[in-house]
Amino acid sequence: MGLSNIEIAQAAQLEPITAIAGGLGIPEDSLEPYGRHKAKVSLRYLDSIADRPRGKLVLVTAVSPTPAGEGKTTTTVGLGDALTRIGERAMVCLREPALGPVFGMKGGAAGGGYAQIVPMEDINLHFTGDFSAIAVATNLLAALIDNHVHQGNALGIDVRRITWRRVLDVNDRALRDVVVGLGGPGNGYPRESGFDIVVASEVMAVFCLATGIADLKERLGDIVIGYTRDRTPVLARDLQAHGAMTAILRDALAPNLVQTLEHTPAFVHGGPFANIAHGCNSAIATQSALRLADFVVTEAGFGADLGAEKFVDILCRSSGLRPSAAVIVATVRAMKYHGGIDVADLPTENVAALERGTVNLVRHLTTVRETWGLPAVVAINHRVEDTDAEVSALVAAVERAGAKAVVARHFAEGGAGAEELAHEVVRLAQEPVELRFTYPDDATLWEKMRTIAKRIYGASDITASTAVRAQIRRLQDEGYGSYPVCVAKTQYSFSTDPRLRGAPSGHDVDIREVRLAAGAKFVVMICGDIMTMPGLPAAPAANTIDVDDEGRIVGLF
Amino acid sequence: MGLSNIEIAQAAQLEPITAIAGGLGIPEDSLEPYGRHKAKVSLRYLDSIADRPRGKLVLVTAVSPTPAGEGKTTTTVGLGDALTRIGERAMVCLREPALGPVFGMKGGAAGGGYAQIVPMEDINLHFTGDFSAIAVATNLLAALIDNHVHQGNALGIDVRRITWRRVLDVNDRALRDVVVGLGGPGNGYPRESGFDIVVASEVMAVFCLATGIADLKERLGDIVIGYTRDRTPVLARDLQAHGAMTAILRDALAPNLVQTLEHTPAFVHGGPFANIAHGCNSAIATQSALRLADFVVTEAGFGADLGAEKFVDILCRSSGLRPSAAVIVATVRAMKYHGGIDVADLPTENVAALERGTVNLVRHLTTVRETWGLPAVVAINHRVEDTDAEVSALVAAVERAGAKAVVARHFAEGGAGAEELAHEVVRLAQEPVELRFTYPDDATLWEKMRTIAKRIYGASDITASTAVRAQIRRLQDEGYGSYPVCVAKTQYSFSTDPRLRGAPSGHDVDIREVRLAAGAKFVVMICGDIMTMPGLPAAPAANTIDVDDEGRIVGLF
Repeated sequence: MGLSNIEIAQAAQLEPITAIAGGLGIPEDSLEPYGRHKAKVSLRYLDSIADRPRGKLVLVTAVSPTPAGEGKTTTTVGLGDALTRIGERAMVCLREPALGPVFGMKGGAAGGGYAQIVPMEDINLHFTGDFSAIAVATNLLAALIDNHVHQGNALGIDVRRITWRRVLDVNDRALRDVVVGLGGPGNGYPRESGFDIVVASEVMAVFCLATGIADLKERLGDIVIGYTRDRTPVLARDLQAHGAMTAILRDALAPNLVQTLEHTPAFVHGGPFANIAHGCNSAIATQSALRLADFVVTEAGFGADLGAEKFVDILCRSSGLRPSAAVIVATVRAMKYHGGIDVADLPTENVAALERGTVNLVRHLTTVRETWGLPAVVAINHRVEDTDAEVSALVAAVERAGAKAVVARHFAEGGAGAEELAHEVVRLAQEPVELRFTYPDDATLWEKMRTIAKRIYGASDITASTAVRAQIRRLQDEGYGSYPVCVAKTQYSFSTDPRLRGAPSGHDVDIREVRLAAGAKFVVMICGDIMTMPGLPAAPAANTIDVDDEGRIVGLF
Repeated sequence: MGLSNIEIAQAAQLEPITAIAGGLGIPEDSLEPYGRHKAKVSLRYLDSIADRPRGKLVLVTAVSPTPAGEGKTTTTVGLGDALTRIGERAMVCLREPALGPVFGMKGGAAGGGYAQIVPMEDINLHFTGDFSAIAVATNLLAALIDNHVHQGNALGIDVRRITWRRVLDVNDRALRDVVVGLGGPGNGYPRESGFDIVVASEVMAVFCLATGIADLKERLGDIVIGYTRDRTPVLARDLQAHGAMTAILRDALAPNLVQTLEHTPAFVHGGPFANIAHGCNSAIATQSALRLADFVVTEAGFGADLGAEKFVDILCRSSGLRPSAAVIVATVRAMKYHGGIDVADLPTENVAALERGTVNLVRHLTTVRETWGLPAVVAINHRVEDTDAEVSALVAAVERAGAKAVVARHFAEGGAGAEELAHEVVRLAQEPVELRFTYPDDATLWEKMRTIAKRIYGASDITASTAVRAQIRRLQDEGYGSYPVCVAKTQYSFSTDPRLRGAPSGHDVDIREVRLAAGAKFVVMICGDIMTMPGLPAAPAANTIDVDDEGRIVGLF
């Protein structure tokens, strides 16, 4: 199998980040370097280029993934490098990896093989501290809430109705449901609460949707932290928390510039999970990249039903971003998985299973092309064990669906392996695109959720308990009905049952819980068993991650 | 009153950190810059200069402080600048400020007036991410513990005897006592636990005492996280956690280089609180500074009974550091406070109260000079409202105690205001010093605690409940008796009662709780009501901290 991701990354010759920035025309005094190979680009500079014409935006999405992932980040990086190779001024925009999963099951999230962003260990670990700032801002607000109650509760906060949760960037199931404030009067009022992972937090969503410092502060002030006894919403602004939260986040809001192994510039900034949050890197990074490059390749997390749907209905709606083309990443492996094959048997050739599984791809393709009106190409992210017969069958299935599939070998070959994909993307992006949202702004929250479930997930209908229905109605009545819906759902299936592979139809989507994100300006609908705080597996990656005698980090995949 | 701290700091003209490093002879490729004015100095470079002769170490300590603090950090900075002004190659070594108190009552902790380290906002907020790394390492270990139990508990951890606590860098009293693992089998086993502030964590202590990456990993592996049913200690090593924890901390372990307002180089690295931890910046930073400068001025937190005692008995003992002189910071204000004056009346001249209060200073002076054998000078940190009569009375009291007092005006005048102090320090540091510890290694844990209480605190004896006595005996029997003791105690009094000002005698010191820190290699004895997780006050500083329309942070003091 050759070298591991970290071995390839550690062997890479990086260019100084000042040179990468210089290639984009960013002056050195607009950079805040973090070491030699990472830098934040100042918001002041990015404001100064806001009037420039925009480049073309390419959205990379995927089929419903297997537990190993289908290489969406890898394809985003490979496509960026390939665009550079064929002579385009290209940039890549990606989410920052969450620390929790790095030490859990997933390992690193900075691409793979010869399509990675570097320095890989830094990006996977603390990077420039953005997630830490987001955690501190979230937890400071929590402390201010409990302190306000403890100090006399002038706002009359109902401790039973505090909805704000604390966060940590650790997979820690023991913190999902906790009781805080125990130990007597000096410690405040006991109440039930819980922790989410940082990437599921509203502050993360606000951070990724904000247009600048002023908008960030405004949105943080709008956060609803809970209710009084008579159900009046209490805002972060009421607690005078939003100024300090903004101070904590100020430096973090400047996008992080790094490079790919082939020196294509990359913004890696913000990182909400697509199954429990809106799933796209920061709007500021993508908007800025479009002023710096002619082609910007960005990724929306997990399958098109999750990340891409939120990219379109939440991010594009609020930010004005408009993609010119989409790439749908598929693998032979995932198609066999959706055709019903066990994970252990996936390496074995099985054309029939693959053909059964293509229903998953075709539904995503239909969503992207017909529902949203985006020109799309399927990128077959090639793996060494894929047989010619399997690849041919997958290409043929895509052609039968009226689209084009391109085999991409960037994992093994870097940008050179994705040149055909790059040419196809350039071709697709020539035509003007009229993006269509999944649902109109003025549909009710219930209608929005139902439209997503029916049009994107193939469901018959949505269901909810009386309590959840009442909560949705109350949010609608309180004036939050114009917000888009942010669905938290398993990434493994169009349904809420991760075992239901392929393209299930006729299922019901049950809304288990609803959370208002008034700062992010969306309503989260938690469907099925999805967790906003993951747990660690029986053999966590943390057990093998180490520092060797030379001070090198090892065991990070 | 002129300009505020942040206004002075924001108006300062900083030198590029590469120039500051260059002045110390540190080559540019041994720096990891964080912006233009902060950099980590590589451990590899610092290892390469380990054989150089060492400069002289000056320890800055203080009287028991008032709630406002007596300007120990300010004096450390002012003395460093004054040493530079009189032609010495000087460096300053300070602790990193904790975020929790910045948003609570204390405000910033980067000095004050014209004696500050800069960039002040960065240092007070996230700086280079060290505390975040320490929090993640601590919380990852916690998650691995609960996960181990959840996944089958092969090690047989007794969930009732897990001693490892999670941490956040927020003042959050609601997290002192919590129940985690609620919500059903999927979330693990319910158990009582709690959160400390990052600066009270064992990982912070380990970080500040480690001699390098290998020692860090070894100590992290040694951490005792709890016990099995038959009382066998369970180590972080048993959970295979220490490698990943080291990976998280690897970059953080390199000291952070910044500068004072007058461009004296400063290492600001690590930051355990002196009342709930061992209270000194990292051993690596101080040891390295001694190879880079002829005079290194460092601070131990709070009064000499707390920070300096631990500096001597924990840090000097384990690291081999040996101070050549000590500076005891006193203020007219604090002397009046110890003379019984209410905080509101402190600005009024009151020579009689001041003279009564000097008993506090004299006891600290006796400890430093007689118990530890360190030559010492008293620095009177001058405030505008101090009258000549008060200052003269304070000088006279010090002279009666056989020592010298120097008035220092660095807050108002920068290094120029502390030149007399600098000359006196240089004079004191000429003679070789034989440092004496408060107690010998081979005393029992109980004897060590009693010796500290009697010799340093003026107590009659120590007390403890039967359970605490049994715990101390068990630690002694288990082989931890050779460790030094780390006392957690109020900083406001020699006793455990913060209201007992001056120099109380004859009191008992009650040990409320004992915690083993096997990685840090000390035993924490928590005396009186001290909290390892602070709370926020009725009007938290967070309410006034903000970002203005220019993107400047305001309201940070």
